[in-house]
Amino acid sequence: MSSVAKKLQELQLEIPVAPKPAASYVPYMISGKQVIISGQIPFVKGSVEGQVGKLGDNFSIEQGKAVARVCAINIISQLTEACSGNLDKAKCIRLGVFVNSTPDFTDHPAVANGASDLIAQVFGERGKHARAAVGVAGLPFGVAVEVEAIFEIE
Amino acid sequence: MSSVAKKLQELQLEIPVAPKPAASYVPYMISGKQVIISGQIPFVKGSVEGQVGKLGDNFSIEQGKAVARVCAINIISQLTEACSGNLDKAKCIRLGVFVNSTPDFTDHPAVANGASDLIAQVFGERGKHARAAVGVAGLPFGVAVEVEAIFEIE
Amino acid sequence: MSSVAKKLQELQLEIPVAPKPAASYVPYMISGKQVIISGQIPFVKGSVEGQVGKLGDNFSIEQGKAVARVCAINIISQLTEACSGNLDKAKCIRLGVFVNSTPDFTDHPAVANGASDLIAQVFGERGKHARAAVGVAGLPFGVAVEVEAIFEIE
Repeated sequence: MSSVAKKLQELQLEIPVAPKPAASYVPYMISGKQVIISGQIPFVKGSVEGQVGKLGDNFSIEQGKAVARVCAINIISQLTEACSGNLDKAKCIRLGVFVNSTPDFTDHPAVANGASDLIAQVFGERGKHARAAVGVAGLPFGVAVEVEAIFEIE
Repeated sequence: MSSVAKKLQELQLEIPVAPKPAASYVPYMISGKQVIISGQIPFVKGSVEGQVGKLGDNFSIEQGKAVARVCAINIISQLTEACSGNLDKAKCIRLGVFVNSTPDFTDHPAVANGASDLIAQVFGERGKHARAAVGVAGLPFGVAVEVEAIFEIE
Repeated sequence: MSSVAKKLQELQLEIPVAPKPAASYVPYMISGKQVIISGQIPFVKGSVEGQVGKLGDNFSIEQGKAVARVCAINIISQLTEACSGNLDKAKCIRLGVFVNSTPDFTDHPAVANGASDLIAQVFGERGKHARAAVGVAGLPFGVAVEVEAIFEIE
């Protein structure tokens, strides 16, 4: 068993099968050694129930972290498809974390850690990444967090 | 005639000549095989008239889609300059779509499709791309949409 | 003395030593020839005092430009670490500038120039870059500007 697969098992994380692309844009593109993953919404079995909210208004930092973690799970799902299941060849380069928040909210890094910590747990040293975390006015479906990613495949 | 040129003709799309860079930043940079295109504002002949608005407030989804399409035209304009007119060598990797919107607006993907659909129409299979679409608090000149892009040139 | 070092001296710019990474994410990653630098907050000696504000509300364009410039100094600090001090090998590819602003603010490019102009001054021709500048709802610690970057090292 690969080391990433072992870690997913330890964390009791089930990575969903990536949905097929159905529009002009696709969930990921490969450019040279980079896998560029589209902004992931926190869908769980096709639904955003429980993932909708705005930080600084009706959503706590802990709730926001949990949503960021779901986005990261969906990123791993797309990455699994992109590298044909061989996650041990993958290294995270960058996460872009968009936090749906009010004008006076200032704890975006704490929310973004929900995604960063999961990627670091699952991929170990190869999970450390550059990051930008900002507060946005709104997000698709009203979800609390959207995360995009760049990985490198060797 | 190249296949992209034919498609532009079919769509009766005239791609404007890219304005020359005039500041510390430039409209695009080439890094390896990637062309990184700066955030494009929906200028039409140097003006943003009719492109100013906020989704969820005074601007409909259809209006927003039309502005996103203008941004995509300006991206093709810069790309034409970057690859010396040989658009058939280019493949779209990623669009970043910033939608000027109110805190309660949630249809960013529909607006972003105005850019994604045009790129897919013009470039066909080579037009499919990764994407992040988010709602921002505001944009330069008050325009409704800004779009940045990464293409790959072979 | 290298040409970038000379320019830093002329500008009387002291580049701080980059703080060590202390979390799941790190200040920069190297991917092929690219250095991807995390979103930089305008820390000065570990503090954001004087850098907190919102454009269009309690912060002028000149104040915003000054904060963007501090972010660019911190980018050069991380880049110095990434290329072991040999800044003459580096070329700027892209800046992403996030401006903490009200819904009606429209002068994001003027604010972003605080970062772009410094990079162009310090790196000369190799400092010209692609850019996206947008207005965000909020930023970590309430700072007025956050800037991320991609450089290329030869």
